[in-house]
Amino acid sequence: MTQPTWMYENFEPAGSAIGYRITRKLDEVQSPFQKIEIFESTDWGNVMLIDGAMMLTTRDNFLYHEMMSHPALFTHGDPRRVVIIGGGDCGTLREVLKHPGVESATQCDIDEQVTRMAEKWFPELCDSNNDARAELLFDDGIAYMANCPAGSVDIVIVDSTDPVGPAEGLFNKAFYASCFRALKDDGILVQQSESPLVLLELIKEMRGEMGKAGFTTFKTLPFPQPCYPTGWWSCTLARKSGGFDYRAVDARAKTFKTKYYTADVHQGAMASIPFVAEALGE
Amino acid sequence: MTQPTWMYENFEPAGSAIGYRITRKLDEVQSPFQKIEIFESTDWGNVMLIDGAMMLTTRDNFLYHEMMSHPALFTHGDPRRVVIIGGGDCGTLREVLKHPGVESATQCDIDEQVTRMAEKWFPELCDSNNDARAELLFDDGIAYMANCPAGSVDIVIVDSTDPVGPAEGLFNKAFYASCFRALKDDGILVQQSESPLVLLELIKEMRGEMGKAGFTTFKTLPFPQPCYPTGWWSCTLARKSGGFDYRAVDARAKTFKTKYYTADVHQGAMASIPFVAEALGE
Repeated sequence: MTQPTWMYENFEPAGSAIGYRITRKLDEVQSPFQKIEIFESTDWGNVMLIDGAMMLTTRDNFLYHEMMSHPALFTHGDPRRVVIIGGGDCGTLREVLKHPGVESATQCDIDEQVTRMAEKWFPELCDSNNDARAELLFDDGIAYMANCPAGSVDIVIVDSTDPVGPAEGLFNKAFYASCFRALKDDGILVQQSESPLVLLELIKEMRGEMGKAGFTTFKTLPFPQPCYPTGWWSCTLARKSGGFDYRAVDARAKTFKTKYYTADVHQGAMASIPFVAEALGE
Repeated sequence: MTQPTWMYENFEPAGSAIGYRITRKLDEVQSPFQKIEIFESTDWGNVMLIDGAMMLTTRDNFLYHEMMSHPALFTHGDPRRVVIIGGGDCGTLREVLKHPGVESATQCDIDEQVTRMAEKWFPELCDSNNDARAELLFDDGIAYMANCPAGSVDIVIVDSTDPVGPAEGLFNKAFYASCFRALKDDGILVQQSESPLVLLELIKEMRGEMGKAGFTTFKTLPFPQPCYPTGWWSCTLARKSGGFDYRAVDARAKTFKTKYYTADVHQGAMASIPFVAEALGE
């Protein structure tokens, strides 16, 4: 029995760190894109790191995956065609496919090794990988969106790592313009948007780039996420036009299970927070 | 210029850690009760540690202090007499005194040194210490509550450290029975109740002890708090009877400024979260 040790991620942009008590390293692979490591923890199940950054734990990933998918899907009137850029751990895909109205969901992650590691160490996230509606591609998400037929997609979910390294190209006007073109008029773009406590500048820049690509309305929803810096994270929704009222009746009547998301939680995440609104100029 | 270093708090009960990038130690005092240290950080302002546990930072303490006070004060119909047990940094006191209807607020912290350090290193939290309605006592909170005239208090806020060391006696039936007795029939007890993600057992036990003391209704409100383990924290409200509908109209019309709390945020914090509700047997 190895003695547990503490493993930390120092998040330089925020000057804060998070850590877990680890029992052993379970796996490691250097893909063409990044280094993926899996650790076993004492209290959080398995932990995936990519290039030293905490990506997910068995225990708390439901918060992120539910909030990256259900708010957008219950905001759209009738989401049938969903594209996930990144999301190689398959957790967002699983949540998206809980919606019976979804006819097809394509997950396009550049790094096949992320999915292989998820299948091995987070198999519960891959429960829906064999769903007939699921398509798993291992390819460049930027090219995928650029080649998407115009007006063919209801929702694009950008479930990526931080805007450095392989994911850098997913945070600029060129990429957002592809998303804009691929989305139908009532489509929604969703992107993980870092910590609303310390990275408001990033959210502002992201919205700025989205705006240059044609999106006109934005909504940032905060949620708890202990394995990410500050423990408080967000996703940002963008639309070509229109607001972010959601299908509360449908959300209340949903037939699938969630551990965090409910209609009331969705409503709560819509609440304007004074210091956030001020920083974003809302 | 000292090179910044990383300082971590390993939170053993949750197997998770938090940390900050620190430039230097500013102050330290060993009081009769505990060791208080103040550090300067690169991004979070000053950081107070008590016996090695992060207590507050300049940057994020508003989340905790606002959520420990305003939900309770806007739930009570007409809060005039408030008692704060612990709370030596004076941040909760400042928030309570923002309510013009409050006639007196007593803060009773066993450790005067916490307040002296707050005055020195977090002076903004002490803005209301000279308010004519404020009373600052440095005494045993357990004894204070036991000696409070029966039915004399509208709200008791237990703003303490974790249930180990000096604060241990603030989490059991005997203390809650004193609070019950001191509170008027429509009174509210509020207590910080740790992380709703990992310490649900503690919340359950706390509610159990409150129940033995006579309280019949409970509501746990989660909120983000990066400087505490998991970054997600909570307060638990308890009443002798009755629910937790709040004065939404008054909260919307409040004349004082907050950075996080609003009526909508309050409403959002009331949302039942499936995995929390299940663990608490709600």
